[in-house]
This record gives sequence, structure tokens and C-alpha cells, in this order.
Amino acid sequence: MNNKVIKKEVEEYLSRYFEGKDNYNKRVYESMNYSLNAGGKRVRPLLLLASYAIYNKDYKEVIDIAAAIEMIHTYSLIHDDLPCMDNDDLRRGRPTNHKIFGYSIALLAGDGLLNEAMNIMFKYCIGKGEEALKACLMISKAASSDGMIGGQVVDILSEGKKINEDELRYMHKKKTGELIKAAVVSGAILGGAPLHDVELLSQYGDKLGLAFQIEDDILDIIGDTKIMGKTSKSDLENDKCTYVTLYGIDKCKSICRELTDECLDIIGKIQGNTELLKEITELLLKRNR
Amino acid sequence: MNNKVIKKEVEEYLSRYFEGKDNYNKRVYESMNYSLNAGGKRVRPLLLLASYAIYNKDYKEVIDIAAAIEMIHTYSLIHDDLPCMDNDDLRRGRPTNHKIFGYSIALLAGDGLLNEAMNIMFKYCIGKGEEALKACLMISKAASSDGMIGGQVVDILSEGKKINEDELRYMHKKKTGELIKAAVVSGAILGGAPLHDVELLSQYGDKLGLAFQIEDDILDIIGDTKIMGKTSKSDLENDKCTYVTLYGIDKCKSICRELTDECLDIIGKIQGNTELLKEITELLLKRNR
Repeated sequence: MNNKVIKKEVEEYLSRYFEGKDNYNKRVYESMNYSLNAGGKRVRPLLLLASYAIYNKDYKEVIDIAAAIEMIHTYSLIHDDLPCMDNDDLRRGRPTNHKIFGYSIALLAGDGLLNEAMNIMFKYCIGKGEEALKACLMISKAASSDGMIGGQVVDILSEGKKINEDELRYMHKKKTGELIKAAVVSGAILGGAPLHDVELLSQYGDKLGLAFQIEDDILDIIGDTKIMGKTSKSDLENDKCTYVTLYGIDKCKSICRELTDECLDIIGKIQGNTELLKEITELLLKRNR
Repeated sequence: MNNKVIKKEVEEYLSRYFEGKDNYNKRVYESMNYSLNAGGKRVRPLLLLASYAIYNKDYKEVIDIAAAIEMIHTYSLIHDDLPCMDNDDLRRGRPTNHKIFGYSIALLAGDGLLNEAMNIMFKYCIGKGEEALKACLMISKAASSDGMIGGQVVDILSEGKKINEDELRYMHKKKTGELIKAAVVSGAILGGAPLHDVELLSQYGDKLGLAFQIEDDILDIIGDTKIMGKTSKSDLENDKCTYVTLYGIDKCKSICRELTDECLDIIGKIQGNTELLKEITELLLKRNR
């Protein structure tokens, strides 16, 4: 069991998920499928499965939930790229959804992916215990207006404005951090982790989410389009406030290093097979070294 | 207990739902709140509560779920009105969401309402039995790409085209019918209805949903802006195929009358206090007499 094997399994699951949809509405499934299977690091499903695997090696039991969280992430990217939002033409090296399917189908495909994630989670919970419901509620809340959408709102409202550090932190935590943390913590809950570990992994999730977003901001400046698969410097062009615009690249890199060490320290405190989670942490937080 | 009392309770619940939200993201709650509390007939919550009340008089137990289904309906209206979709300026007699809050916040408010509905449903299910989960899954599926979103997709794709009756039926059933049916059937399931009644109410829901959509199409032609609270003849202007464009108004009216009678017949076969459901059925299906 390693990161690559699990990622491949996630990819296979996602590539087959919308097979056999052939009705008058099939265009929306083509659109949903296009963005869901456009590559990507699969960070959230990998984290969920790795966290689950600390407590239960049959990680395939929760691959549905891992797929659901990736659908939520994908919907947010489709809506984020729309002309009324960031107006991006390129995502993961390919034209964005609306460039292929048009504005209205892309909008509905985003709605459809969020909704499908919820279908999967309700279905999964039938016949399971209360922990399953709590894990799904956590994921749903992380995506909501007090979570990811809330961060997106602040991001939109702050364009062209100078925002303070508190607001920037809020935006980052919500926009990226909450769903990443929910992936880790819900995976642990689904796997049957003791409360003490759930708390540790919650701290880990906060730090990882923050580090991940700061890395993304750094890559947005120094990465080129080929590495990132999207037009780089788009934050600058959109006149967005990021950690890099606030602190500069060097400070950001040092914050990232500190957060990475703290993440690995926390993992070290957890009993059980944490190899996979450690591997993914190192992989994620060393993208720009 | 009558339709007006229950509607007032739903209104009160919805008007308080987003109270106390005062963070950097509060603009999105203002936007969500604006559309959620813009009047409206509250058809879906009323149907859910009336159906539940046949089997359990403590209908307030499921007012959360009734609110959730109204949030799903409201999100669909916000997205439906956006410039890339129907591009409507007026809804329920007031400016549409994006006219007040702008395109991107309206988009995110729609996302937020769908997501909040799911939060409510997951939370509700904790500590409840399997029936609660089945009811919530039914609502979630009814909203999804094989349900309401699917109908919306066909609606968009068919603009300016002549579609056949089969496709039109599909579009209507999905776009309006599925969520209305889910309201009725999930209410019954939550109330503990016997399987036989669930089946009857499922047939009722199909017929009601169809009749309701045909009435809406009729009102779109003959109603004026004041009655409908939205710009009338917008379907014609958008060159949309509807039952009215396919069959003409007289045939549509007679189909509606037949469906109404069939709905009332089905209700007559159900034991228990069906007065409220009967009252709502008559109210809904006699809007244009």
C-alpha cells in the first residue's frame, strides 16, 4: 500500500463513476466527468484514505467517501473558474469546464457534483452507525458557507482591496483549509480512531491546510504554467491579496517549512501505521523545494 | 392546524435561520437570506409537513427538513435566474439575487443554500433511524443531475429547438416534479407511513408535480407580472418549448383538471387525517381557474 497505488484506485473509481449515463441530460454528466477526470493531485481523497488506513487497513470500504470529497473539490474549481469568478481559461493543463461545455452547463455540472457527493454520503450512511453520519456532516459543513464557500466569498470581496492578516487567515483557513482538515479527520472517524487521535489529526489538518494554501500561493508566483497546469501569476493579475503579497516569498517558505515539521511531529505522536499519511504529507509540502 | 398556520411557522423558521451570522463572509448569508425570505408559496415544505402530519401530528419535528427542501428550491431559483441561464431581473416581485448582490455572490449563495440543506439533513439524521436517512437520500437524489439539475440541463439545451413530447415530459418531470414528489414521499416516510401509502403518495407526487408545472406554463402565458411576481411570457421570449407551446392552453387546462381529480382520488384512498394535504392540493392546482 502506497500513495501511488491508492491514487490509481481513486482514479479508476472516479473514471467509472458516471459510466452508463445516457439520457437527455447526458451532457451534464460529460461535463461533470470532464473535470472530475482531468488529473489533479487527489489530495483530499488520499488524505482521507491514508487517515482511515491508520486504523483500518480495508481502505476500499470508504473509497466512496473519498470520491465524494473529490467531487466537492472539483465542483468548487468549476465554479471558481467561471467568468463571473476568476475567469480562468486553463485548469490542470486543459481548458476549463466552461470553455468546453459553455457557461450554463458548467454551472450546472458544478451543482451536480456537489449534489452527487451528498447522494454518495447519504447512501453510505444507511446501515452504518452514528460515526459515519458525523464524518459526513463534518465534510458537508467544511464545504459550506461557514467553510469553503465562506472563504471563496471573502476571496471575491477582497479583490482589489488590501485586507488585514486576520481576514487573510480567515480566507485561507476556510477556502482551502477546512476541506483538507475534514478529509483527514473524517477519515480517522470513519476508521474508528480514538478521540485523542481525532484531536491530534484535527491540529494536523489545520496546519497542513494552511501550509498547502501558502505553497499554492508561492507556486502561483514562481511556478510556470507547465508545472501548475494553470495560468500562473493569475492571483497577481486578479489583484488578489495572498500570503505572498503580505509577507513575501522568503517568509512564506519559512512558514511552510515550520508547518511541515509540526505536521510530521504530530504524526509521530500517533500509534498505528502512519507511513502513508507521512508519505503524503512530505509529498504535498515539498512541491516547491 | 391549517395551511396558513403551517406556512407562517415555516416562514418564521426560515426568517430566523441565518440570524447571528456576522463574520467576514456575512455578505453571502445576506444574499442567501434575501432569496430564502422573498415570499414564495412554500409549496415543498407545506407538502412535506402535510404528508408527515397524516401519520404524526407533531409536524414541527421535521420543520428542519421542510426548511432544507425550501433551501434546495431557492438555490435552484437563484442559479436559474443568473445571466448565463434565464437571465431574469425579477423573481417573486423583487429584483433577482444577482441584481442585488452581483453575479459571483449570487452564484455562491446558491451553492451555499444547497450545501446548507445537506448540513441540516445530515444533522437531523444523527440519532434517528434508517428511515430518516432514506428520506434525506430521496430529497438529495431528487435535486441531483438525475433529478432537478437534469431537467434544468434539458431545459437549457432545448432552448430555440423543437423537442419531442418524450423529451418535454422528461424535462418537466425532472425539473419540477422530482423535488415536489420527494417532498410528499419523504414527509410520509419520516412520519412512519406504511409502504402501501408511500406507494400511493408516490403516484400522487408524480401527478401533482406534472400538474403544477403545466399550471406554471399556463400562468407564464396568461398571468401578468403582478400575479406571478416575475416577468410573464419569459418562456416565449426565451423561445422555450413548454406544454402550452406543444398542446395549447385549452388542452393544458383539461390535463390539469384531470390530474387534480386523480390527485384527490388518491388522497381519498389514504386512511388518517388527510385534510391538510387535500387543502394544499386544491390550493395549488386551482391557481388559474
